[in-house]
Amino acid sequence: MPDPTDLVQSLRANRRQLSRLLTKTENGQAAAEIAAIYPHTGQAHIIGVTGAPGTGKSTLVNALTKYYRQQGRTVAIVAVDPTSPFTGGAILGDRIRMRDLSGDPGVFVRSMATRGSLGGLARATGDLVTVFDAAGFDVILIETVGAGQSEVDVARLAHTTLVIEAPGLGDDVQAIKAGILEIADILVVNKADHPGVDNTVRALRAMLDLGHRVERVNHHGTLRTVPAVPLPDEATAWQPPILQTVAAEDKGIVELAEKIAAHRQYLRQTGVLSVREQIRIELELADRLREALLQRLLATADPAAIQAVIAQVSQRRLSLSEAVSRLLDHTSSLP
Amino acid sequence: MPDPTDLVQSLRANRRQLSRLLTKTENGQAAAEIAAIYPHTGQAHIIGVTGAPGTGKSTLVNALTKYYRQQGRTVAIVAVDPTSPFTGGAILGDRIRMRDLSGDPGVFVRSMATRGSLGGLARATGDLVTVFDAAGFDVILIETVGAGQSEVDVARLAHTTLVIEAPGLGDDVQAIKAGILEIADILVVNKADHPGVDNTVRALRAMLDLGHRVERVNHHGTLRTVPAVPLPDEATAWQPPILQTVAAEDKGIVELAEKIAAHRQYLRQTGVLSVREQIRIELELADRLREALLQRLLATADPAAIQAVIAQVSQRRLSLSEAVSRLLDHTSSLP
Repeated sequence: MPDPTDLVQSLRANRRQLSRLLTKTENGQAAAEIAAIYPHTGQAHIIGVTGAPGTGKSTLVNALTKYYRQQGRTVAIVAVDPTSPFTGGAILGDRIRMRDLSGDPGVFVRSMATRGSLGGLARATGDLVTVFDAAGFDVILIETVGAGQSEVDVARLAHTTLVIEAPGLGDDVQAIKAGILEIADILVVNKADHPGVDNTVRALRAMLDLGHRVERVNHHGTLRTVPAVPLPDEATAWQPPILQTVAAEDKGIVELAEKIAAHRQYLRQTGVLSVREQIRIELELADRLREALLQRLLATADPAAIQAVIAQVSQRRLSLSEAVSRLLDHTSSLP
Repeated sequence: MPDPTDLVQSLRANRRQLSRLLTKTENGQAAAEIAAIYPHTGQAHIIGVTGAPGTGKSTLVNALTKYYRQQGRTVAIVAVDPTSPFTGGAILGDRIRMRDLSGDPGVFVRSMATRGSLGGLARATGDLVTVFDAAGFDVILIETVGAGQSEVDVARLAHTTLVIEAPGLGDDVQAIKAGILEIADILVVNKADHPGVDNTVRALRAMLDLGHRVERVNHHGTLRTVPAVPLPDEATAWQPPILQTVAAEDKGIVELAEKIAAHRQYLRQTGVLSVREQIRIELELADRLREALLQRLLATADPAAIQAVIAQVSQRRLSLSEAVSRLLDHTSSLP
């Protein structure tokens, strides 16, 4: 393996090199390279973009990308949404727009193979983000469909999370679940030239007003060692704004980019950025530790004993939680 | 806690009792009850129904349910699709249809809170299925949106997996990913009265012909102790049929139900049913073991040592995989 600094240089200079490492990363075969480049990360602003199919999320990602490119900033897009044009489930118009972007050497689009990714979607996405970060991209956009635990996990990788809504999807904002609102730093009502936009904005406003917005540390799934740092209280915490855009016509994109910049400044000034960073690290560590511990158990335990326990579960003589206790007892005396 | 047999009796007799246990299960607080009822499971046929939004998946689930009810069989529906009418993101017509169903005491609909479910979506869904199975439902339908790793995990809970497609969604069947086709036991082209149905069927047929269909055991994420049993080869393996339905008019539903019954018979006769069952058990055991082992590590390790490692990762002086090795070294000498 090349010297870490050489590796980072070649990632920045050579798109084929970058592409090769991304593929290796997705296949879970780049642990050494990721360890080597890791000291060179931490500069990119990571933006999560989530929302239901039909909200025009991909068009918005396109429009934001074009704006950042006009500002001279480089952009990587990680699409983990199976309905996104970046991953293939697209209408022709979107594909053509996407192709426009990918001709630009300052833009790199990577769609995630969500199926069978070793160690879960969030981990695989996290590794891709690390590669893009080391490769020097200024902005990394992670596009996910607004649904499911794995997407919430992915959102926890982002510094700033945009939740995209559109008028007339279901009854008002029924499509938005409370959980999604909790992860939103900025709410975007896209397709704001469609009828019903005022209703959607009003409904979102009402839902936001219901919750008292304070910075919360979500310890779920982490190692739970995050120190209690003084976080902004209700008076000083970031209040998620509701913006209106027509991404297909580039309307409202400048204002959106300005709000994203303002949120980044808030994160830095309050120290929330480093707390979010630590949460992300703890999540990834916990994820990898779980798997490593299981592999260690399987490597040391007696296969016959494991098979015997499984057989008892199959015969419904043992429940799953009883089986887990049994297997843990087996291994508690191991080195 | 009541006697297991009493508990099962009360679940079968009393819908409020069932509903209460389902809620407890979703909150991860029913381990004792699930252990108690587990010996009374294994009778239900578990059918996974997956497909992109817009394919009419929920309407199809409705139509199948009505058919099974006419046959005198009881049906439980677990909706883990955030765009499903069962979970709220619905158009009015679907909601009314859903209400029709839920007036019937032989039908029980449960939507999953996908966010923040302890131990992941597949585990939470698996526990709900166990409760419905013990409660005596003949058929359990699990409805998921056809996207993402978690949905594939959910599909692995099912005995028979239906993949739903519809004409005119994207370019031909671009919306269907290879991974989804791999998990399909039966392909359904719904909305078969819409233009373009022949193209969709032809494209699906071409994709199916590309792959040599043999029974495969997917060990990913399991304990990898599944014994090598003789599985059907290419000549005798189930070949996924492509059916056409118009679920909104109940067309093609009888044929679909017959194919589902034929698949169940195939599973039983070939022994594939018990292999799938063991895979499911190993997946759940692996999932629970990972978490239990991590909790044991956290309970015994020195918090200061863990925090020191995390700080080094934050400062980018240690990569995540190096940090995992460090933490495992710390704990390898523990009891």
